[in-house]
Amino acid sequence: MTEQVTVAVDAGGADLGPSEVAAGAAIAAERGVRVKLFGDASRIDSVPSGVEVIDAPLSIAKEPDAARAVRANPGSSIVQAVRAVAAGEADAFVSGGSTGAALAAGLFDIKRGRGIHRPALAVPIPVPGAPVTLLDVGANVEVRADHLVQFAFMGAAFAQSVLGIERPRVALLSNGEEATKGTSVVVAAHEEIARRAAASPILEFVGNVEGTDVVAGAADVVVTDGFTGNVALKLIEGVSQMMIGAIRDVATSTPRAKAGGLLLRPALRGFRDEIDPEGPGGAYLLGLRRLGVVPHGRFTRFGFSQAILLAARGVTGDVVGRTHGALESAGALRARPSAADANSPQGADGSDDRSSPSDPSSTVSAP
Amino acid sequence: MTEQVTVAVDAGGADLGPSEVAAGAAIAAERGVRVKLFGDASRIDSVPSGVEVIDAPLSIAKEPDAARAVRANPGSSIVQAVRAVAAGEADAFVSGGSTGAALAAGLFDIKRGRGIHRPALAVPIPVPGAPVTLLDVGANVEVRADHLVQFAFMGAAFAQSVLGIERPRVALLSNGEEATKGTSVVVAAHEEIARRAAASPILEFVGNVEGTDVVAGAADVVVTDGFTGNVALKLIEGVSQMMIGAIRDVATSTPRAKAGGLLLRPALRGFRDEIDPEGPGGAYLLGLRRLGVVPHGRFTRFGFSQAILLAARGVTGDVVGRTHGALESAGALRARPSAADANSPQGADGSDDRSSPSDPSSTVSAP
Repeated sequence: MTEQVTVAVDAGGADLGPSEVAAGAAIAAERGVRVKLFGDASRIDSVPSGVEVIDAPLSIAKEPDAARAVRANPGSSIVQAVRAVAAGEADAFVSGGSTGAALAAGLFDIKRGRGIHRPALAVPIPVPGAPVTLLDVGANVEVRADHLVQFAFMGAAFAQSVLGIERPRVALLSNGEEATKGTSVVVAAHEEIARRAAASPILEFVGNVEGTDVVAGAADVVVTDGFTGNVALKLIEGVSQMMIGAIRDVATSTPRAKAGGLLLRPALRGFRDEIDPEGPGGAYLLGLRRLGVVPHGRFTRFGFSQAILLAARGVTGDVVGRTHGALESAGALRARPSAADANSPQGADGSDDRSSPSDPSSTVSAP
Repeated sequence: MTEQVTVAVDAGGADLGPSEVAAGAAIAAERGVRVKLFGDASRIDSVPSGVEVIDAPLSIAKEPDAARAVRANPGSSIVQAVRAVAAGEADAFVSGGSTGAALAAGLFDIKRGRGIHRPALAVPIPVPGAPVTLLDVGANVEVRADHLVQFAFMGAAFAQSVLGIERPRVALLSNGEEATKGTSVVVAAHEEIARRAAASPILEFVGNVEGTDVVAGAADVVVTDGFTGNVALKLIEGVSQMMIGAIRDVATSTPRAKAGGLLLRPALRGFRDEIDPEGPGGAYLLGLRRLGVVPHGRFTRFGFSQAILLAARGVTGDVVGRTHGALESAGALRARPSAADANSPQGADGSDDRSSPSDPSSTVSAP
């Protein structure tokens, strides 16, 4: 199914180095995905079959000003990978980061999809029995209501084409379940999503969810602004780690507890696999003309292989086309997309799209 | 130390009924706090010594429009308890909710402290080894930078006088640690808190924290707007519950795991006590001329006794005076407090204090 798909992979942002990314690419190549790997060829021990290595020794993954680094370094591994997609030599890109650089390069070279206000970062969170995709987790720190409306349909199209959820349940994150709860932006978005969802079969709008319900299976997709989403994603990560640490402490606190911990260990291993953030492949950059995936820099080959395989699934599932179709059927495309606008990531339509490539958050981390 | 303190307690909002609240009042009375208990006297089996029961059968804890219910029902148990404080017959109040009704009644009858823009709800979260107080968790869904600045000093004064932390480390919740990260409101608040904290010995401003760090001991007090804070508080609750549930499932998944779970159980009990949300007593309503505490309606007598005892500690520790002093020393009092303003919870100073008693969030829950 994914035999025809080519994924451009930037090996520059991986903490474990380009060889680990190449090993992930090899796993994906074995499953039928063609990979163009951009990275420091001298640090890649052996080139797996099905993987083409393009030497790009310069990494800008650690640059603090991501947008400036992207502009200044067209030869960097991430810019080359993104440009391969823009040139039609690959169908999607995968980069270990930084997220800010991926967002900036995507906006500069691939451009936003027609009629889309803002790209958004979506992270599928592996909650046992209640997986949920959260967006935006940091691309847009401040949003308008019509941005949140688009995120709802972008998230639904993603859940359909990449995660295989036929009619995703989409919720809006707020401080109460009632439609009147939330900031003025959230209240306006609620009304608008409800209205547009009624006319669109692609998603089921389940209304507002509170923080308690995000990991309780209340929805498949949870929509919020990039500030709240980033805080929420990192809180989920922090609280999970804290609980695991506390229970580890409990399980070594007395000889009796130690014995119990040893007996539990094999069963806990399965649980750890279930909540492994590498499984979903990372953060998905939605709203461009092609799909981008940003695995966390600390991921192993498994996480990179998942990112490549899920990017390929997004291509065969036509996440870009479905996103456009979902927005169009819901009447949620931006009113006056122009050719000029399409060529400027900063927006030439007079809208206050303040999330220019100079301020994408580079702080997003996969959970 | 707390012998002279009188706490007005509303028994109307407790899920377990007024007798449970009376039992909590008895525990506090034994420790030297005088309690005036407002509730349905016919449902209170025996009146503990040190507790005066004032019959107030009407509860508005379940009313959806809290502010309207407060206005319409001066005889309700919560309004009577709050008015006892306003009249000087008690020093602080405790109410099992609703939070919205407590906020509205506090604003109407006790009034905001002089120079304070907005009251805020603070919740001490019992993280093992890294307790943290989060504010605002829902009183102000939308805030200005100067509101966040005041919350920083209000939270610090609370941590000093109620939690006994000498020089609290205060952080601002954001989507990145750099001072430039966050919404425009957060960025402006960061600059202002840093500037004012440098001139004030009462707190140490540790800058921005991300979601990951909230429960990792990075700060004693974490400041945010009521929307993000409410989402964060409930996420902490939801993720903790999810993790406990998942580990319970693991510990019953195989005979071997079951045996391990049984051996661990005694040690886990201590951990559960450590994270018991009843320990810190609930949510604290800061910024009024007297302290209010809102234990969760589902709390047992232990939680109500903690709320009463900690309210009394806030009185002897002079949380109200310290709050004013902290704001004054930092130059963070509102510029032109007027007599008219003090009598109107809606603000008569021309500032857009939109958090009128008609829109306090009634959805806040203790963790």
